[in-house]
Amino acid sequence: MRTSIATVCLSGTLTDKLHAAAEAGFDGVEIFEPDLVASPASPEEIVALAGRLGISLDLYQPFRDAEGVTEDEFETVLRRARAKFVLMQRLGIETMLVCSNVGTATIDDDAVSADQLRRMGEAAAEHGVRIAFEALAWGRYVDDYRRAWRIVELADHEAVGVCLDSFHILSRGHDPAAIEEIPGGKVFFLQLADAPALSMDVLSWSRHHRLFPGEGAFDLGSFLTHVLRTGYDGPLSLEVFNDVFRQTEVGRTARQARRSLTWLEDLVGSRPLPPVAEPTGFDFVEVRAEDTGEVDVLLGQLGLTFRGRHRSKDARLWADGPARIVCNEQHARDRTPSLAAVGFQVADPAVSAARARALQAPTVYRRTLATEQELPAFRAPDGTEVFLGSGSGGEATWAPEFEGGRTSGAALLTGIDHVNLAEPWQCFDEAVLFYSSVLGLRVDVSQEVPSPHGLVRSQVVRSASGACRLALNVAPLVWDASSGFPQHVAFSTDDVAAVARRAVERGLVPLAIPQNYYDDLVARFDLSRAEVREMAELGLLHDRDGAGTFTHFYTATVGEVFFEVVQRVDGYDGYGAPNAGVRLAAQDPDR
Amino acid sequence: MRTSIATVCLSGTLTDKLHAAAEAGFDGVEIFEPDLVASPASPEEIVALAGRLGISLDLYQPFRDAEGVTEDEFETVLRRARAKFVLMQRLGIETMLVCSNVGTATIDDDAVSADQLRRMGEAAAEHGVRIAFEALAWGRYVDDYRRAWRIVELADHEAVGVCLDSFHILSRGHDPAAIEEIPGGKVFFLQLADAPALSMDVLSWSRHHRLFPGEGAFDLGSFLTHVLRTGYDGPLSLEVFNDVFRQTEVGRTARQARRSLTWLEDLVGSRPLPPVAEPTGFDFVEVRAEDTGEVDVLLGQLGLTFRGRHRSKDARLWADGPARIVCNEQHARDRTPSLAAVGFQVADPAVSAARARALQAPTVYRRTLATEQELPAFRAPDGTEVFLGSGSGGEATWAPEFEGGRTSGAALLTGIDHVNLAEPWQCFDEAVLFYSSVLGLRVDVSQEVPSPHGLVRSQVVRSASGACRLALNVAPLVWDASSGFPQHVAFSTDDVAAVARRAVERGLVPLAIPQNYYDDLVARFDLSRAEVREMAELGLLHDRDGAGTFTHFYTATVGEVFFEVVQRVDGYDGYGAPNAGVRLAAQDPDR
Repeated sequence: MRTSIATVCLSGTLTDKLHAAAEAGFDGVEIFEPDLVASPASPEEIVALAGRLGISLDLYQPFRDAEGVTEDEFETVLRRARAKFVLMQRLGIETMLVCSNVGTATIDDDAVSADQLRRMGEAAAEHGVRIAFEALAWGRYVDDYRRAWRIVELADHEAVGVCLDSFHILSRGHDPAAIEEIPGGKVFFLQLADAPALSMDVLSWSRHHRLFPGEGAFDLGSFLTHVLRTGYDGPLSLEVFNDVFRQTEVGRTARQARRSLTWLEDLVGSRPLPPVAEPTGFDFVEVRAEDTGEVDVLLGQLGLTFRGRHRSKDARLWADGPARIVCNEQHARDRTPSLAAVGFQVADPAVSAARARALQAPTVYRRTLATEQELPAFRAPDGTEVFLGSGSGGEATWAPEFEGGRTSGAALLTGIDHVNLAEPWQCFDEAVLFYSSVLGLRVDVSQEVPSPHGLVRSQVVRSASGACRLALNVAPLVWDASSGFPQHVAFSTDDVAAVARRAVERGLVPLAIPQNYYDDLVARFDLSRAEVREMAELGLLHDRDGAGTFTHFYTATVGEVFFEVVQRVDGYDGYGAPNAGVRLAAQDPDR
Repeated sequence: MRTSIATVCLSGTLTDKLHAAAEAGFDGVEIFEPDLVASPASPEEIVALAGRLGISLDLYQPFRDAEGVTEDEFETVLRRARAKFVLMQRLGIETMLVCSNVGTATIDDDAVSADQLRRMGEAAAEHGVRIAFEALAWGRYVDDYRRAWRIVELADHEAVGVCLDSFHILSRGHDPAAIEEIPGGKVFFLQLADAPALSMDVLSWSRHHRLFPGEGAFDLGSFLTHVLRTGYDGPLSLEVFNDVFRQTEVGRTARQARRSLTWLEDLVGSRPLPPVAEPTGFDFVEVRAEDTGEVDVLLGQLGLTFRGRHRSKDARLWADGPARIVCNEQHARDRTPSLAAVGFQVADPAVSAARARALQAPTVYRRTLATEQELPAFRAPDGTEVFLGSGSGGEATWAPEFEGGRTSGAALLTGIDHVNLAEPWQCFDEAVLFYSSVLGLRVDVSQEVPSPHGLVRSQVVRSASGACRLALNVAPLVWDASSGFPQHVAFSTDDVAAVARRAVERGLVPLAIPQNYYDDLVARFDLSRAEVREMAELGLLHDRDGAGTFTHFYTATVGEVFFEVVQRVDGYDGYGAPNAGVRLAAQDPDR
């Protein structure tokens, strides 16, 4: 299907927006009136630019407060509308969005609204254009698409149809099934937006928090299916008001937007992608720095074994069973340690890579020699490189390229439990869409965790099996600006106390946890003083959910990286969120 | 009355918070449990530090999910409570906050809750402490302070009282008048918070958006009056969860918090301040730069007359009637032009200054020679220097200090209509409190205006008469970070077209307004093509509200400063908000 995007979704000037939409692969745009009004480019220049860029101008929007008014008022409405119809002719735009009246309606009568829309339609037809009537979720009288359609039916004019907007319908909880009762030829336009599940007034929700499809909580797959069953064959068009997208780089937002429609078309089966395959485990995590020495020491203390240097690259592999960390000093001048890449094990890397490419994930290129495994790789929105490997569990197909190390001894670590990534605030929603659409990770719990410098927002995305879990963390602005927000890898084990004890014997100084925390543990849980004393000696933290328990400890931070070791018992399914505030206070760089 | 603040209001570690509270002049603090748990300082160290700083530890909080539970559950509650009572003894804290149950309540019965609170009270009394029961706005069964009081009455134990929190009561719209039915001796604690009028779920509203008294929309004066009538004589304590305050500099937030209580005590008459006097007009606005030359040129084009150089300072005065701009090159090395100071005319500067000092507004010192007027001055949270002068209208008492210029000719400007100030996002709420508490300006309309780089939040504060209007603007993060967000002075006139024409003749190039804007004006308003053509030639913009009209134009930006000239007709009371997006697009530094 054709794709389109409203210019209000994007930052910059109108011409910036047209360039970005075209470059991201959209077929057309909706012209948001304030963008045109503020543009120094004439309508003729806009048409010429769109022509050169190969995009169409699909909709002129919005026209407000048109119907349900007195006859006196309606005269002004018609004058205003005629001026816009002339402008639309100059722009070569066929359809104008007419919103249900919010400000000036005084007559709550379908017949009056229908009569006024019919007369607007007659005027539109004189100019060779048409109007698409949309029920705003906060329309004064018309706030339901079913009523908007009744009014359009009554108006009974070929230049009068409806515009359907997923936000206005789903935010109100209206059943979209009745969309199928509208003939496709009367659905003049379709606007798509997702949104997070928020409990707030619908106007603020709409104006500030809309998201691209796949980034929020709406069931857009079933919504779109209802619309397609009408026979609608106009564009799938995005209309997303979002405070973040309004200020971030226009090209990036346009590509993110385009990806959301690719995902949605796959979801409804209208343009299938290579199938999604949930990762079955972490293949490796890579730490990159000019000198990873301190990280190597930490890994040794935690019980990972040095498995060797890479044949052709300046990288070392550390492993314990399926827990694998690559320390990479390639192309890392002046870099302090940070998490640079995460490898996932998938059933068929070639298929997953084809899906990633179809979703416009930017490819990462690394020099690979003929004798080496070539892992497809893509760059996530936060800059993390995502590699796709075909190994499983303890096996990594590329491990033999690392030579000169030892094989592991008795494995105490059982793998990588989860990886915590720092997300710049500009990237958060795009990251959620990336990890869910490319890798099929599911959106799980979201938490806000207090730190000494503000709340940290933490969103987990994970595979259904729990084999791969990522926590996406947005740091408070002040922390984010003053120093990199630390990222970490959490290793899993069946005996966290043993891992901690061995690590301490090898010289590890665990992150210092205050005695006050342990006093509180005694108050909260049925733990003996002796149990808690051992925890305190090893820097262990503890949490419970239902029947399950979670015991874990942290290393100090090196550069922007630290490590955690966790033991889940009896199906504990969280991440120790009640302890995160204690951890963040202990990690406070200003402490 | 004694004042206190919950540590959760402030950023940093627990010891940072104690220092900041003491330095800001609070008498005590509430210890927020997670702050203690995350602190490496032992309870004894905290007590010793508080002793040295001269602040008391007034409350331990919160204790959750205590009552309305099964007997089995209640055993665990009592065990947990006893551990906290021991801790309170170590801390020397007399009162613990017990919140109404959110998570574990299964029994909706006042008698059960009362019995359980009574037993907690007995345990508390054994440790020499007491509990204050508070109805959370989202408590599962107990969500109204009147019910919490009934339960406390039923519990009938000397160690069981209520805690009143303005947020939990006012957010639900509960009438605070019934507070007076509670005996003062049973009000164990009082927590104060303001909040903006938001329509969202009360939990998110409470956790993220609370404000200090005077910064929001709650009527805290009448709330506190009801509480004081009970005979309550404990501290006025602030408990404000706010995403911004959690991450901004702790000392600054503490001073802001303390100011809010000073304002509130004045409001209810318990500790009166020198009276507030609304300013009667702008005395002057000062532009500071190493070289203000370009600004001088603009002012001359707009019709202001050079009135002379200051006797002893490197400053020049430009005026037209009561519109006065001081161009100051003193102490301005490397500075590009910015708005540095705003002078207000007040009935008695000494009284207003005494009020400002009592509200802890930081004093600004400037060298003043014996023969010169000494204007009291204070620094607003955004850094703007606020001067208090005694002149009125066309008279400025200090104007004779400027020598060697000309007197004005025929005045076309009638004064300063409003001043737009840029507010860093960290300062916004504090700025609102500053301008309202110190100068008595009232909170007026709030708008969100689109710019090519995101939404600009604009809050007007003004005198009742309209003689002084300030628009406080928070720029989108991206714009704010990349270059200073421009500030401006709007001059008023009764003939904006004449001012514009004269300015253009003198060489002014008005801010370029797109032709598309004028086409839209024709569609929106009943204006002739000829009228609009003249507007376009002069760069005039136009708006209407009810009967009134507003016509205005902008200069280009020099450094971070530009000017506007506005003509209000027939009582137009806004600021041309519908045109602000066009202006911001035209000012886009990336354009």
